[in-house]
Amino acid sequence: MADESLLLTIAVLGGTGKEGKGLAYRWAKAGYRVLIGSRSSERAVKAAGEIMQLLEGSSSVVGTSNFEAAQQADIVVLTVPYPAHRETLEGVKAALQGKLFVDVTVPLVPPKVSKVQMPPAGSAAQEAQEILGAEAEIVAAFQNISHELLLGDDEVECDVLVTGTSKKARAEALTLVEAAGLRGWDAGPIENSVVVEGLTSVLININRQYGSTHAGIRITGAKNKQA
Amino acid sequence: MADESLLLTIAVLGGTGKEGKGLAYRWAKAGYRVLIGSRSSERAVKAAGEIMQLLEGSSSVVGTSNFEAAQQADIVVLTVPYPAHRETLEGVKAALQGKLFVDVTVPLVPPKVSKVQMPPAGSAAQEAQEILGAEAEIVAAFQNISHELLLGDDEVECDVLVTGTSKKARAEALTLVEAAGLRGWDAGPIENSVVVEGLTSVLININRQYGSTHAGIRITGAKNKQA
Repeated sequence: MADESLLLTIAVLGGTGKEGKGLAYRWAKAGYRVLIGSRSSERAVKAAGEIMQLLEGSSSVVGTSNFEAAQQADIVVLTVPYPAHRETLEGVKAALQGKLFVDVTVPLVPPKVSKVQMPPAGSAAQEAQEILGAEAEIVAAFQNISHELLLGDDEVECDVLVTGTSKKARAEALTLVEAAGLRGWDAGPIENSVVVEGLTSVLININRQYGSTHAGIRITGAKNKQA
Repeated sequence: MADESLLLTIAVLGGTGKEGKGLAYRWAKAGYRVLIGSRSSERAVKAAGEIMQLLEGSSSVVGTSNFEAAQQADIVVLTVPYPAHRETLEGVKAALQGKLFVDVTVPLVPPKVSKVQMPPAGSAAQEAQEILGAEAEIVAAFQNISHELLLGDDEVECDVLVTGTSKKARAEALTLVEAAGLRGWDAGPIENSVVVEGLTSVLININRQYGSTHAGIRITGAKNKQA
């Protein structure tokens, strides 16, 4: 993996947000070249600087616009809040041709964020597929990971369920999961993303009911190469 | 719980199936009076006899028709395969007034059972709500537990996510989860049942991809009174 990762560039769109910054930090630490994308290039440059500081300058993290980041990357990851999902996707669509697209979006609808409320497409990831077209390789992942845990270096006690449009796309995404120091599972076709996105509302509910802050899930009774 | 359980009767409709038999076994063992319901009273009597044999006759398990079982019970649990869901519910609706109804149904659509395919209502539990009416107290639970594990006495390494129409209904169902020797969590409103029902397809997918037979989930990062 180390060799391959040196060659690959990952764009994290909406990378100035907490979740995006956490993922960018972990991938930069693993040796990937990371581009932070934002509506505001200025804020992207600032966020990239913050991550570089955390990594003591040992990695390559650059801030730019969402479109520039998507265009220069091999893999494009979207971590914007749900209200910006469609607009961001439409803005970068032309730059995504032939690239793996990883959607981290959870379609939470305030104020009832502990209640599952999916868009008409079925899930945010399926909405992305409607926007990007049937040919696009789309994966949904990382929706259940608390951003506070990503920016630390401790083991994250939450598995990543990866759904996507093809087994090959899911396998590529599982490499990114592993590179981020997380344990991932192939969770099936893109239609299954409703489960993983919706699980975020279930975990929010558990946090509220049981006074926790980082409820997560682990798959039991099965073994992958990491477990 | 021991005192209360002696007074309560649980009907397990479709209790001749593997999942129903497993739950009936565990509740009878915990001291509940259990009624096995089936379309065929004859098969219900046979299944009840099998469970009594496993328990060495120390408990009360009786077989009868679905309607009789529902009518005589305090709590009604439905464990039929999805194609029999609507018909069974319509047949026992009149007997459910004022009783907690627990739906264990997973709307799998063969042959693609590893792909989430929910009915128009959003989930089997929401479909039950459409059939039973807005006043009904409905809970969805136990959809992810492998039946082979229920009929054994070992610890089941899979948590039970409980969704339902009210917090009170979910709390009552959590008592049943605990009585069955399982660890349960309040997973929020009935709309969240899509996550838990759909998780069964995700777990089937994981079993296929990773060669396991009993993939399950555990909630991490939170504590309930059992954990």
